Amino acid sequence: MDKAILFVIDGLGDLPTPKTPLQAAKKKNFDWLAKNGITGLMSTIRNGITPGSDTSHLQLFGYDPERYYPGRGPLEALGAGIELQEGDVAFRANFATVAEDGKRIIDRRAGRIPTQTGKSLERYANMQIEGVQAIFKSSVEHRGVLVLRGMDLSAAVTDTDPHGRGDGILQSRAADSLGSKEKIYALRTAEIVNAFTEKAFQALGNAEENKTREAAKQLKANAVLLRSAGAYKKIPAMKERFDISAACVAGGALYRGIAKYVGMDIIEVKGATGAKDTDLKAKADAAARTLENHDIVFLHVKACDSFGHDGNFEGKKKMIERIDKEMLPALIKSKAYLVITGDHSTPCVRKAHSGHEIPVLVYGQGERKDSVKRFDEISCMQGGLGHMLGSDIMPVILNLIKKGKMHGS
Amino acid sequence: MDKAILFVIDGLGDLPTPKTPLQAAKKKNFDWLAKNGITGLMSTIRNGITPGSDTSHLQLFGYDPERYYPGRGPLEALGAGIELQEGDVAFRANFATVAEDGKRIIDRRAGRIPTQTGKSLERYANMQIEGVQAIFKSSVEHRGVLVLRGMDLSAAVTDTDPHGRGDGILQSRAADSLGSKEKIYALRTAEIVNAFTEKAFQALGNAEENKTREAAKQLKANAVLLRSAGAYKKIPAMKERFDISAACVAGGALYRGIAKYVGMDIIEVKGATGAKDTDLKAKADAAARTLENHDIVFLHVKACDSFGHDGNFEGKKKMIERIDKEMLPALIKSKAYLVITGDHSTPCVRKAHSGHEIPVLVYGQGERKDSVKRFDEISCMQGGLGHMLGSDIMPVILNLIKKGKMHGS
Repeated sequence: MDKAILFVIDGLGDLPTPKTPLQAAKKKNFDWLAKNGITGLMSTIRNGITPGSDTSHLQLFGYDPERYYPGRGPLEALGAGIELQEGDVAFRANFATVAEDGKRIIDRRAGRIPTQTGKSLERYANMQIEGVQAIFKSSVEHRGVLVLRGMDLSAAVTDTDPHGRGDGILQSRAADSLGSKEKIYALRTAEIVNAFTEKAFQALGNAEENKTREAAKQLKANAVLLRSAGAYKKIPAMKERFDISAACVAGGALYRGIAKYVGMDIIEVKGATGAKDTDLKAKADAAARTLENHDIVFLHVKACDSFGHDGNFEGKKKMIERIDKEMLPALIKSKAYLVITGDHSTPCVRKAHSGHEIPVLVYGQGERKDSVKRFDEISCMQGGLGHMLGSDIMPVILNLIKKGKMHGS
Repeated sequence: MDKAILFVIDGLGDLPTPKTPLQAAKKKNFDWLAKNGITGLMSTIRNGITPGSDTSHLQLFGYDPERYYPGRGPLEALGAGIELQEGDVAFRANFATVAEDGKRIIDRRAGRIPTQTGKSLERYANMQIEGVQAIFKSSVEHRGVLVLRGMDLSAAVTDTDPHGRGDGILQSRAADSLGSKEKIYALRTAEIVNAFTEKAFQALGNAEENKTREAAKQLKANAVLLRSAGAYKKIPAMKERFDISAACVAGGALYRGIAKYVGMDIIEVKGATGAKDTDLKAKADAAARTLENHDIVFLHVKACDSFGHDGNFEGKKKMIERIDKEMLPALIKSKAYLVITGDHSTPCVRKAHSGHEIPVLVYGQGERKDSVKRFDEISCMQGGLGHMLGSDIMPVILNLIKKGKMHGS
């Protein structure tokens, strides 16, 4: 079967203490694949460079971030299910708790309001400002996205979210060193952003939901903080560039957003949460099923990265063991080519992304094998794939499924 | 400790006859580091390309020579301790012996005059020409640098040094194919260079020092030959680009000049000569001490390259043994991350730089290890770092000391 699954285990790579989670985990299916496949190490962006989650996935999908990265805002907005239009300016947003005078931020996350409260508050942040439509959508807990839709907007505006620097909501400003036309658009957009902030503060202050929270002595979600502005521009889809149909099985909104951005179909899987409680088996089964009408399935599991950020070695190790047991059998059974890797390392001792290489594994009937017998950061140093870059992944997959275009003739 | 030492052993790589100097040397500390670290091979510029000393170090420091290489002149001038200003045009210079008619070069190196004589003759080559200041500084033996400082100068001028081609001092000319503005500057600069050459010849001919040399039947240093013109332009320092403080421990002027160019602090070490008699232990101790107030220390030892140029296998081998014994214990004790490599290979059988890969070693607490047990050109072929480029080195160091900036978000 000339189809492939690209399985990205977020934050997979780690450092030895003295073993890495991959080395410590009991994972007979991963190791069976290593023994029957070919392995290596990969730097998603470049050797030593620490990848973010967004640029790394673009790179893995064959989209050079230097050319195609639209900023985090549009990717999150797509992931939240907003159908973006050319020229939309999108922001990441947080509900926050601000003092009555509007000057002081009490909690950047509004006491982490329940997802349902966020949904219910959405309507106070949807509005029209000077002919521009402000489309707000909440996602998980205090998080959400804002899209500004209208003529002559610019993403070259600064955040209103102080990110812990200072304690008040910031005024959005046009970025420095812009051309004169872009400057005019940016000045206008910053004005609209500031008007949105003010209007949302007034509307949320009077919201029924916040009166209920106040009565229950809970922090009110009475303001919206914005960051990571980006302008949306339609780009050539994978179908157009690579002549393949691709689909995404992922719980996390960002990953669904990136997949949507490059033209993948988004597959809904019940129980796929993008969190530690996600239904791994349901995702693997969905990926295998999705191969029936797609050439490539991008399968994503977030939790290893989350455990890395928590510094939870045992959690990361056990998550790898669960993936091995609950997912790999269905993937192997699918008969598709398997390309298994991560987007970056998230070493538990660092509790953050790092620039260390990530193990990568290619398995498929009739493909070359190397002598590596285990799938981990150290064993894969000897792997037959050598040291790859993220930009190698999509050409390798296209080659596996015989969709590679000839260079020259 | 999140600090690192980048130890560059100049001309380290070699060819097997039948062993390489690294293979033949007794070097228990190098091998201990290989066993407890991770190794590989590196091409400073690109696979197979023979690196010069200047571009290779720029690349190792994370400065792409395509973008940042100012020519050899300015780097030598900075290394000689001249504080360059934007627009200065700098040359490498030699004192030479020229026949009385000024037409024939008798010795391109003026009989390798003592360093002290060069210093004493400096004053005859410092002058004003048409509003341009000619700043001459001697360095070691017959060597020195000339800086032209003034308005509207250009580095697009040819050498006066015939380098053994022909036997007279050459007239400097404007380079071919320049734009009209640059051409005017270059024509003017060439005129100034030729005037300098003439005036220096007259002044040196009457110098007291040369009369003494003549009486002692020694070759007179009665002319200055110029080569390798380059214009100085201030570039963003390592602090600005990488948010790190860096320092240089090197004896050789060129290496100090390159370090200065990228904004490193230059550490003075008594006995660090940049020659075969250098005080290795003093340099290693200084590097370890310098970590107290710097994030990265660049440590440089020149002599392995010099022995390579001499074709002296035994000398190179013994120098490696001395480095192992006199330097590595202090570096290991420093607890800093160690990145040990060379700038290029200088095979003894070639007596010249070559494009062969250079061994590289990364060692640090908590980092990944490979199965390589010896530090040499052949063992490192199996190393877990694989085949690196010079441009990988600074990202890898920044990742080690947790100073890597995230790509994307």
